[in-house]
Amino acid sequence: MNRSKDGEPNRSETRGSDFLQLDPADAPPGGLADWLAGRLRAAVADGRLPVGTRLPATRVLAAELRVSRGAVTDAYQRLADEGHLAGRGRAGTVVVAAPLDPAPAPRPERTTRPTRATTTSPPAPAPPAPFPKNPGADIFDVLRDLPARIDLSPGLPDLAAFPRAAWHRAERTVLRDLPAAGLGYGDPRGTPALRTAVAAWLARYRGIRTDPAGIVVVAGTAQALGLVARVLTREGIDRIAVEDPGSLGVRQHLAHWGMGTPPVPVDTAGIRVDRLRATGAPAVLLTPAHQFPTGAVLGGDRRRDLTRWAAAGGLVIEDDYDAEHRYDRPPVPALRSLLPDRAFYLGSVSKLLAPALRTGWILPPPPHLDAVIAEKRFADLGNAALPQLVLAELMNSGEMERILRLLRRRHRRRRDTMIQAIAEHLPTAAVHGAAAGLHLTITFPGHPPGPHDTAFHDTALAAAALEHGVKTHPLSWHTQRPHPPGLVLGYAAVPTSAITDAIAALAQALHHIDTQPATARAASNSASHRSR
Amino acid sequence: MNRSKDGEPNRSETRGSDFLQLDPADAPPGGLADWLAGRLRAAVADGRLPVGTRLPATRVLAAELRVSRGAVTDAYQRLADEGHLAGRGRAGTVVVAAPLDPAPAPRPERTTRPTRATTTSPPAPAPPAPFPKNPGADIFDVLRDLPARIDLSPGLPDLAAFPRAAWHRAERTVLRDLPAAGLGYGDPRGTPALRTAVAAWLARYRGIRTDPAGIVVVAGTAQALGLVARVLTREGIDRIAVEDPGSLGVRQHLAHWGMGTPPVPVDTAGIRVDRLRATGAPAVLLTPAHQFPTGAVLGGDRRRDLTRWAAAGGLVIEDDYDAEHRYDRPPVPALRSLLPDRAFYLGSVSKLLAPALRTGWILPPPPHLDAVIAEKRFADLGNAALPQLVLAELMNSGEMERILRLLRRRHRRRRDTMIQAIAEHLPTAAVHGAAAGLHLTITFPGHPPGPHDTAFHDTALAAAALEHGVKTHPLSWHTQRPHPPGLVLGYAAVPTSAITDAIAALAQALHHIDTQPATARAASNSASHRSR
Repeated sequence: MNRSKDGEPNRSETRGSDFLQLDPADAPPGGLADWLAGRLRAAVADGRLPVGTRLPATRVLAAELRVSRGAVTDAYQRLADEGHLAGRGRAGTVVVAAPLDPAPAPRPERTTRPTRATTTSPPAPAPPAPFPKNPGADIFDVLRDLPARIDLSPGLPDLAAFPRAAWHRAERTVLRDLPAAGLGYGDPRGTPALRTAVAAWLARYRGIRTDPAGIVVVAGTAQALGLVARVLTREGIDRIAVEDPGSLGVRQHLAHWGMGTPPVPVDTAGIRVDRLRATGAPAVLLTPAHQFPTGAVLGGDRRRDLTRWAAAGGLVIEDDYDAEHRYDRPPVPALRSLLPDRAFYLGSVSKLLAPALRTGWILPPPPHLDAVIAEKRFADLGNAALPQLVLAELMNSGEMERILRLLRRRHRRRRDTMIQAIAEHLPTAAVHGAAAGLHLTITFPGHPPGPHDTAFHDTALAAAALEHGVKTHPLSWHTQRPHPPGLVLGYAAVPTSAITDAIAALAQALHHIDTQPATARAASNSASHRSR
Repeated sequence: MNRSKDGEPNRSETRGSDFLQLDPADAPPGGLADWLAGRLRAAVADGRLPVGTRLPATRVLAAELRVSRGAVTDAYQRLADEGHLAGRGRAGTVVVAAPLDPAPAPRPERTTRPTRATTTSPPAPAPPAPFPKNPGADIFDVLRDLPARIDLSPGLPDLAAFPRAAWHRAERTVLRDLPAAGLGYGDPRGTPALRTAVAAWLARYRGIRTDPAGIVVVAGTAQALGLVARVLTREGIDRIAVEDPGSLGVRQHLAHWGMGTPPVPVDTAGIRVDRLRATGAPAVLLTPAHQFPTGAVLGGDRRRDLTRWAAAGGLVIEDDYDAEHRYDRPPVPALRSLLPDRAFYLGSVSKLLAPALRTGWILPPPPHLDAVIAEKRFADLGNAALPQLVLAELMNSGEMERILRLLRRRHRRRRDTMIQAIAEHLPTAAVHGAAAGLHLTITFPGHPPGPHDTAFHDTALAAAALEHGVKTHPLSWHTQRPHPPGLVLGYAAVPTSAITDAIAALAQALHHIDTQPATARAASNSASHRSR
C-alpha cells in the first residue's frame, strides 16, 4: 500500500498527459519535438487518432506536458507538412489523413454479428427476407435494420408527434432547479417527482390508486419483465403462463430469464381463464385492456373469474402497454385496480411518447415491493435522473394530455385509412382488434388453416410483402400453438398515404403467394433462411 | 376474437373518457351533471384526484364525453361551491380540498421499507448511525439518505461543475437533428454516435484501440457488472476473484448475480498476482489504474505477470472507474490495451460528469461480444437515446476535455486541503492513494490491528464521525479479510472549507473513540444496530 503520508503532500505537478499517455520523460534530450511528432504520427497510423479527430490546443498540451509551447507547435507543424494534420481555425487542428502505412481498416459496424442480414448483401438489391418460422433472440434487431419502403411493424406511436420543443423547455426548468446532489446516486425506485406524477396519472387515467412509494421507475417494460421474472424465480416460480396469440418479444424476455411460458388460448373476451387454471401455472402475464395482438378486451366475466383465480393464489402480471390509445369503445380500468395485492402492473411511455426514452414503471403487489426494488438496484442503481424529471414536468404541466389527444386523433385517422384500404384491396381478410391501440391484426378466413405444407404460411407472406417494400410481423411469430395465418400491422407511425400504398402492396404479395406453387414457396423460404 | 371486419369500419365516435373512466352511458336520464359531480366527488374523496390535481378543461371533457359543455361546467361549479375545486385562471380548475370523509392518508415514502433509518426517528435529533460490521444490500441507500453536515462518502466528482448550460445547448442540437426513427427502438449496443465518440475518447485517453462496433453502451458500471456476471455464469464460471481491500459495492453486485468473490490481497504495487493464481479463480475483477480503496497503481511486473495469467486462460474485468483523475503521477494506459482478447473493459461517466446520468460502456473481449449484447438486449433493449446523443455531442465538441481539466484543478486543491488538514488534525494517521482519484484512505498505524474486541473498530469510528456531523465509509466495509481499521474519505465533491472542518470533526471523533472504554463502545455499537 502506498504510504505517502509524510505531513507534506507531494507537490510535484502532474507529469505527462492522458492524451495518448504521453510522458515527456520518454523523449531523448533535445529531441522533444521529434519525439512528439513520432508519437502523434504513430497514433494517426494505428487508428488511435482517426481522421476527423481534433487535437488538443498547443497551449493546453504544452501545459499538460510541462514543455514549451514551441515544441508542440513544431511537432504539429511537421505532421501538417506531411499532410496528416490541418488547421481548422477556431475548430483547432484536426487529423485529415493517415500515413501511407495505415492500420487495418476498422471493421464495419456489424462484422462481429455475422448473422445480421445487413452484412450479407450490398445495399442495392433488396436483401432476402429474414422471416424464419422460429425467430431467434435478435429477430427484432434484424428486422429493424432491414430497409423497407414502408414499415408497418407494430408497437410504435407516431414518433413525429414527439414534443421536442416542450421536452427542451422542460429540461431547461429541470436543469435550472435541480440541486447538485440530484446529480449523484439516487433512490433505485426513481425520483420522487416522477413517481408522484405517475401515481397521479394512473389514478386519473387507469383507475389505480397508489402511493408514489409503491412505484418503481424502470427502463421500459423490457426491464420490468426481467425484474419481475427474477423476483418470481427467487420465490421458486419457474413458469408464467402467457396469452396465445401473445407477444413474441414478451415470451423471449421471459424465456431468457429462465421462465417457462405455457400458452393459454385467447378468444373474443380475452384470455380463457378456465384454460389458465388447467395449466397449473402459478402466474400469468396478460394484456387485458387491448390483447396483443388480437385486440380483445378482457370481458367482465373473465375479470371476475381471474379475480377468483388470483384469490386462490395466482399472481397476475398486467402489461398495460397501449391502454391510453382507444377509439370506439368505453375505457377499461386496469386489472390492478381490482387486484392491488395480486397484480404487478407494468406501464411505460413507449407508446405515449417514444420507446427511445426507455422509461416505464412497475407497481408490484406490496409483498413483492422490496424484492423488486432490490432487483432494480442490482440491475442499474435506478434510471437516469434528468429524463425522469423532464417527464414529470410534462406530466404535471398537462403536456402529456395534450400529446395523447393529438395522437388519438391522428392514430384514429390512420386506423380508419388502413381499415378502408383493407376493405378495398384485401376483401378476403378479416380485421381484428381495431377499436384501440396502435396496430390491427388480419387473418385470411378464405385460406383454410392447416399444417404448414398444405396452406400458405404467414412467414412466406411477410417475406413476399417485404419484397414488395412493406415490413410487417407474421402473426405466427406471436403464437405458440397452430393458428390460422395472418399479419400484425402497425398503423400509428405511418402517414395515411403510405398506409394505402402499403395495403395495396400487401394485396400484390398475397396474390404472389396464391399463384406461386407450394413447392416454389418452400424453396424460396428456405433460400431466405440460408442467406441469414 | 373480435371479427369487426365488415368492409366498413365502425364510425361511432369514442364513447367516454379515460379521465376516471367516465362513461356517460352510466348517467341516469336527465341526471348528467348530478352523475358527473358525484363521480368527481368520489374521486376526490378516495384519492384518485389528490389536492393540486388539475381537471381537464370543461371544453375538452365535454367533447370526450360527447355531452354539452354546460353539464360539465355545472358539475365543476357544484364541487367548487362545496369547496373541493377552485378556478385558477389560465392554470384551469384544480382540486383544493377533499370531502369530509377522506381516503386514508397516503403512506409516507418509506413506510414500505421499515429497515430504513430515516423512518425510525424524527428529524430533530441525529439518527443513530447505521454502520453495521456486515452491511446489507441497501446500505448505500440507507447511508445516502442519512442527514450529515458534511458528506465525505467516496465516489462522487464535484457535481457543482456539471455543465448544465452545455448539456442544454447540446440537447437542442440533438432534438433539432434527430430523425423521428431515432425515437423508436434502437440498437441494444447504443447509438452509433456515442459508440464512435467513446471509441475516440478511449483511444486518446486510455490507449485503447477499438471499433465502435465492439462497444456496448450500458447504464453505468453497476449494470456492466451484472451483464458480465451473467455472461460468465452462462459459460459455467461461478467465481470472480476481487481485490482485498476492494469495493464493497462491486462485491455486493457480483454476489447478487450468484458469483463467489474470493479475496486477493493488494499491496503497494496492486493486486498480488501470485495470490490470484493460488485462488484458482477463472476470472478477476480489478482496478489497475487507481486501486479502490488503497489507490495503488498496478506495477509493471504485476502487469506482465497478469498478462501471463490471462494467456493461460484467465479472464480480466478491468473497472477503470476514475482513471481520468490524476495529479502527481504519469498516466497509465488501460490493461485492456495489453489484453484486448482477455479483458472486459468497464468505464462510465459517473466520475467524469455525474452518476445520475447512468451511462457507461463495456468493451468485451471479441469472443464474448455477442453474449454481452444479448444480455443488454434482455436487460432493457439498450440505453435511452437522447442522453447518449447529448453525451456524444459533449465528447465531440471538446466540452468533456474542458470539464476534465476544470475538475482536475478543483479536485487537486481539495485533495491538497484534505492532506494538509489530516497532517494538522490527525497526525497519527497514514494517508494512502492520494496521487489520483476522488478519495483517499487513512489508517491508524498508532492503533495496533487485531480482533475487533481488543482494538477499535472503524465502524465505531465512522459512527462517532457521523455523530460529529461527518459521513464517511469505514475501510472494513471494503475488506473481506481482517485489516487495520481505517476510513475512506471522498474529497472531490466537498468545498475546501468544509474539508478542513470535516477532518477536525474526525479528530474529535477519534478522540471520543480513544477515550471511551471498549465496553461502552460495544454497547453503543449494538444500540445503533438495534435501531436499524
